[in-house]
Amino acid sequence: MNDAAGKNTIERAEPGEVGIVQPRDFVSTGEFVFESGQKLPGFTLRYETYGRLNPARDNAILICHALSGDHHSAGIHTLADRKPGWWNNLIGPGKAVDTNHWFVICSNCLGGCQGSTGPSTINPQTGRVFGMTFPFVTIRDMVRAQKRLIDSLGIESLYAVIGGSMGGMQVLQWGIEYPAFVRKLLPMATTARESAQGIGFNEVGRQAIMQDRDWNHGDYPKNGGPRVGLAIARMMAHITYVSDASMDRKFGRKRTAAESSTAAYTFDAQFEVESYLRYQGEAFINRFDANSYLYITRAIDHFDLAEAHGSLEKAFEKIEAETLVVGFTSDWLFPPEQNREIVLALLREGKRASYAEITTDLGHDSFLLESEELYEIVRGFLK
Amino acid sequence: MNDAAGKNTIERAEPGEVGIVQPRDFVSTGEFVFESGQKLPGFTLRYETYGRLNPARDNAILICHALSGDHHSAGIHTLADRKPGWWNNLIGPGKAVDTNHWFVICSNCLGGCQGSTGPSTINPQTGRVFGMTFPFVTIRDMVRAQKRLIDSLGIESLYAVIGGSMGGMQVLQWGIEYPAFVRKLLPMATTARESAQGIGFNEVGRQAIMQDRDWNHGDYPKNGGPRVGLAIARMMAHITYVSDASMDRKFGRKRTAAESSTAAYTFDAQFEVESYLRYQGEAFINRFDANSYLYITRAIDHFDLAEAHGSLEKAFEKIEAETLVVGFTSDWLFPPEQNREIVLALLREGKRASYAEITTDLGHDSFLLESEELYEIVRGFLK
Repeated sequence: MNDAAGKNTIERAEPGEVGIVQPRDFVSTGEFVFESGQKLPGFTLRYETYGRLNPARDNAILICHALSGDHHSAGIHTLADRKPGWWNNLIGPGKAVDTNHWFVICSNCLGGCQGSTGPSTINPQTGRVFGMTFPFVTIRDMVRAQKRLIDSLGIESLYAVIGGSMGGMQVLQWGIEYPAFVRKLLPMATTARESAQGIGFNEVGRQAIMQDRDWNHGDYPKNGGPRVGLAIARMMAHITYVSDASMDRKFGRKRTAAESSTAAYTFDAQFEVESYLRYQGEAFINRFDANSYLYITRAIDHFDLAEAHGSLEKAFEKIEAETLVVGFTSDWLFPPEQNREIVLALLREGKRASYAEITTDLGHDSFLLESEELYEIVRGFLK
Repeated sequence: MNDAAGKNTIERAEPGEVGIVQPRDFVSTGEFVFESGQKLPGFTLRYETYGRLNPARDNAILICHALSGDHHSAGIHTLADRKPGWWNNLIGPGKAVDTNHWFVICSNCLGGCQGSTGPSTINPQTGRVFGMTFPFVTIRDMVRAQKRLIDSLGIESLYAVIGGSMGGMQVLQWGIEYPAFVRKLLPMATTARESAQGIGFNEVGRQAIMQDRDWNHGDYPKNGGPRVGLAIARMMAHITYVSDASMDRKFGRKRTAAESSTAAYTFDAQFEVESYLRYQGEAFINRFDANSYLYITRAIDHFDLAEAHGSLEKAFEKIEAETLVVGFTSDWLFPPEQNREIVLALLREGKRASYAEITTDLGHDSFLLESEELYEIVRGFLK
């Protein structure tokens, strides 16, 4: 499977780019017991790999995606693809996560909707979509499912686990759940404990979805459903991913082309920021399942390592990996303090941990954006 | 009308309290031309007054409310009232805005829904509610309508105009529009220019309303309409009025009573912050008109004094009043920088202006909350 794992990676490599990649499905046929106690007879995780697993099988790096991300973190699927994977700027030959050196794995999370088993999957026992009968998913469930995938690839230890936002929660959970399995943890723009504000924003998004009549208790046709509610949820969430300063620089009070010629007041998208947010909402409903949005935001809400283990120090007691947490100054969803808190608790437990803070006004999504500073930090940490 | 203006104020005065107040309606029968060029043959503003206009008629203070506020800024309407007016902590005998000394006026804004003419008013020409046929309203329109009310009370100059958030925008507009009429301007937690982020949040709220099928292009029955959309808009907006820190202190990750006994995962309100936000949404739909929400947020979006006058300095060119701007450190809707910017532009124009910044972690709504520091600042400025 070493060979197989390497083979789908680079079919057409441009210098510095991962090239064309094929997603694959890992099917786990063993029963999976969720934290909630609910069970599934098995599950599928869709994943991609980049680079080659070395003969020692010790060069694997796992990438964990955020709420709306997926397994497609680098490369393109076809030559016609205009957009590469979501972390293509970080992952590739010669890049910070250098696929000439590392074997990189990224899977769509359990509960997701991009090929992994989740609420939009057909329940084989009923022949119908799971919808809201899908078991509740936690960050720990996501990690335990990923572990089966990693095991199936014949990998006996991960050199590193890397992720931002909800991905960072999974990174921490990996270190806690499988302490001897992971050498380096690199969570970014994240928290050990979802805050009241975070739960609040998630709840507004969920209410927008669940109060949309087309949600119908989660029972909707594949291309229907609460499109309005999901778009509203996404529009709002998008604002929380950026910053006042970055929105002002990007849009300010610029008028849309349609409106710039007239002084009239309308409720159409008169300002560019409005048409941009509307576009974000529209684009999202075409690629994301509303029920998955409910489940994944709920997993985030319930993430509190201190609550789960008695204290953050106890949560980190068994961690063996070296940890580097990266925070971003203008991230107001998972602000620097929440990132620092992780490192302080690790240090109090005598763990190898450090904190890097990147000064930027680009907000939470900074971890996804081009940043030589971030690349250098990642490169240095993986050395 | 001096007598009349004073008479409705205190029918039952408790020490330090305004007591029972009766709202009144000012009916302007002169044609009103909106900034948009649209016209109304007249309009009504509902208002309240506290204290007595002195014989010199020079002790009047106008209070301007924020987006979801109204004319009821102090006192109670009946003995059964459990909640006094929204700025009752600031306004009253012996309080920072001392009604033993000042004659205080507060009116529901034009376009509002608490008794003043707005989208939910019956259009006398059609016999039907205006709905979306109501003219577009701007902050300047609101101020020009208020001026007619002030004139009708026989007041020839205002000692001060005070307001926070959208109320602060009106305060600035008063100083610009009627420079010789106002002696002191006291805007708080506000901006001279609605930011892209602000427009963005307003737009998400509007889309939640307008995409709700029950909105029906603004044509809905009095107690119906887009209740879901309006509740979603309010839930989201509420988060922007507070802060990460204050929500964490107030709610943290506390579970609701219904949920605290069980570890199960549900999509009900498991966290207190969720049930609180749901309550905020529910309470709002019973007191606010969705179309008014659209109109008033749009008025805020279009507020940009620099755009309207060429530059902020030009906007402030004619201001005669002394200005004190109060910003709050944790206000991320109208952050301190935006408040400071107003003062800097005034100072560059050689105006009497100063800035006070209150350190608090309570967010934007700090201006509404108990604060001895704020009371002292207001008291000092009014001296």
